Amino acid sequence: MIRGHSNESMTTTAQKTPDADQDRALDLLREAHSFVLVGHQRPDGDCLGGQTALARGLRSLGKEVRILNPDPPGRTFGYLAETTLFEVYQGGELPAHDVVCLLDFNEPSRCGPELQEAVRRAPSRKLVIDHHPPLTGPWWDEAFLDPRASATGLLVYRILLALGAKIDRETARGIFTSIVTDTGWFRYSNTDTETLEVASELLRCGVNPTEVYGAIYQRMPATEPRALGAMLQRVEYYCDGRLAVLDHPLDAGYANDLSDSDAALDILRSVEDVEVVLYLKELEGGICKLSARSKTDYDVCRLAAEFGGGGHVKASGATIRGTLADVRRRLIEAASKGFQVR
Amino acid sequence: MIRGHSNESMTTTAQKTPDADQDRALDLLREAHSFVLVGHQRPDGDCLGGQTALARGLRSLGKEVRILNPDPPGRTFGYLAETTLFEVYQGGELPAHDVVCLLDFNEPSRCGPELQEAVRRAPSRKLVIDHHPPLTGPWWDEAFLDPRASATGLLVYRILLALGAKIDRETARGIFTSIVTDTGWFRYSNTDTETLEVASELLRCGVNPTEVYGAIYQRMPATEPRALGAMLQRVEYYCDGRLAVLDHPLDAGYANDLSDSDAALDILRSVEDVEVVLYLKELEGGICKLSARSKTDYDVCRLAAEFGGGGHVKASGATIRGTLADVRRRLIEAASKGFQVR
Repeated sequence: MIRGHSNESMTTTAQKTPDADQDRALDLLREAHSFVLVGHQRPDGDCLGGQTALARGLRSLGKEVRILNPDPPGRTFGYLAETTLFEVYQGGELPAHDVVCLLDFNEPSRCGPELQEAVRRAPSRKLVIDHHPPLTGPWWDEAFLDPRASATGLLVYRILLALGAKIDRETARGIFTSIVTDTGWFRYSNTDTETLEVASELLRCGVNPTEVYGAIYQRMPATEPRALGAMLQRVEYYCDGRLAVLDHPLDAGYANDLSDSDAALDILRSVEDVEVVLYLKELEGGICKLSARSKTDYDVCRLAAEFGGGGHVKASGATIRGTLADVRRRLIEAASKGFQVR
Repeated sequence: MIRGHSNESMTTTAQKTPDADQDRALDLLREAHSFVLVGHQRPDGDCLGGQTALARGLRSLGKEVRILNPDPPGRTFGYLAETTLFEVYQGGELPAHDVVCLLDFNEPSRCGPELQEAVRRAPSRKLVIDHHPPLTGPWWDEAFLDPRASATGLLVYRILLALGAKIDRETARGIFTSIVTDTGWFRYSNTDTETLEVASELLRCGVNPTEVYGAIYQRMPATEPRALGAMLQRVEYYCDGRLAVLDHPLDAGYANDLSDSDAALDILRSVEDVEVVLYLKELEGGICKLSARSKTDYDVCRLAAEFGGGGHVKASGATIRGTLADVRRRLIEAASKGFQVR
């Protein structure tokens, strides 16, 4: 366990001097007494890890904190929920509080229509802590924003250091969870010096990286490797091998044994010549679900948008009406054009 | 580019004060002028990355350095070979030199019988730089050993800092290669505070982690996902699902399309209940090659040792005489006992 303003930590914080906006956000955190931390829909590791750390850190300073999300944590993050209470919003007014902290999002609709309305109605100050680029003007009272940070959890770490909060093993594990989930375990291009330096300091606070890795990434059911194997045999390449397409018909024998497509997408992304991977899952009722991933600057968000979906440049999705064969054909045609443009 | 004794780096080195043995090893490196760096058979990322960094660092101090290995770098590490010459030993005496540095091994036979003899015959000082636990007595003149270090490359980093050598982008990338390959990209339990702190400093020297990740882990041939899929369908579980066994018969249709077993081992290790994975590849001439991996404190080095092999507690291997069916049966029997002992 370390205290915020230790000498060891100053090398990191010295590089990240809070700006005037961030200073006002810190003042609000210092002055207020009771907080409600609100996350986004289907909260991910960055959101849940950041909430864990901010809640524990603020409590170490004697403050009252509740976490309130539109959805419960997924099974993957059960290890955080063992010691931190993530309440699910059930309607009505928010509990009495001075400040609402919105973590890991800055567009209010992302916490869902009902919770968004409750936040709006609450007579409290609104503080946004986020690393996504702001899409709308500043509707908040205060904000601690840095779109260059690899994770919202890193901002929470900077905040806890600035406040002199206690960073014990579980607080550190929350921040570590934020960092590893948003950087793809230090693989994505947002992995920077601060990311690794803070991760190192979190290990010094007692985080066990293998334990966290196991909890998040080693939870595959025993039936899945064979199902994955069956599916991988269906891969087809197009556009001189730059496009890999994997589909998953409704009647595939392995359908029920495959919990998600991440492992398959990861493998196809690791093929040397592949730049774009399309994964297409046939659902009941004549619709297909697309997951698209890009390894280069190919914009799969634009591709998904053509089919009514969206997402990020390197990871996007869509739900598309049509038979598997038809949707597949249309997608390959549209995706091929993206290579021709370049 | 940074120089060794910068303030920034002192937090790391301060924790790792060289002991008396290490001090003598550093003196030898300071005093000698010409070096031959010798690696082990089938040199891995730690060996090749450490050689790259040590060669460049020593050359920055005006010393003459040649790298001489029993085998050439694998295709995976072609990016290191673009700027660093890894000579392959062709028989005869070593080139004239003051010191042989043996990197990433301490048992002399691991550089192959011919090169081992040439090293022995050379009238030079022998320096071992390694993080494996020494198996034999000290046959070397000097040694810079630390079995707690996650990679030999970390020791090279400590050495370069102590010598005040220049650590430019390519030197840093060598050390980064060592670290990421020997820690399974920061996933294995040897990932510690120093590992992440040094990785952070290497990024500051210009290393691009996404580029290194792509070069090492995203080079799969397009034919491999299907071969991997075919192999995954052969997985069998034993010991209540704690042991996963995958074999690869000589006559498997996919035999030529599978470059290595890493992807398969990774997938099986990610199965929730699996603690140990055994991968058995049948070779020509009635022998089988074992790769064993452990996710827990199960000691697969002890298991491999029973079959004449060795390695680390969590990753080991052996070359075993016998038919695939016979070797497989004996291995499962021996591995099962390891679970009973606990």
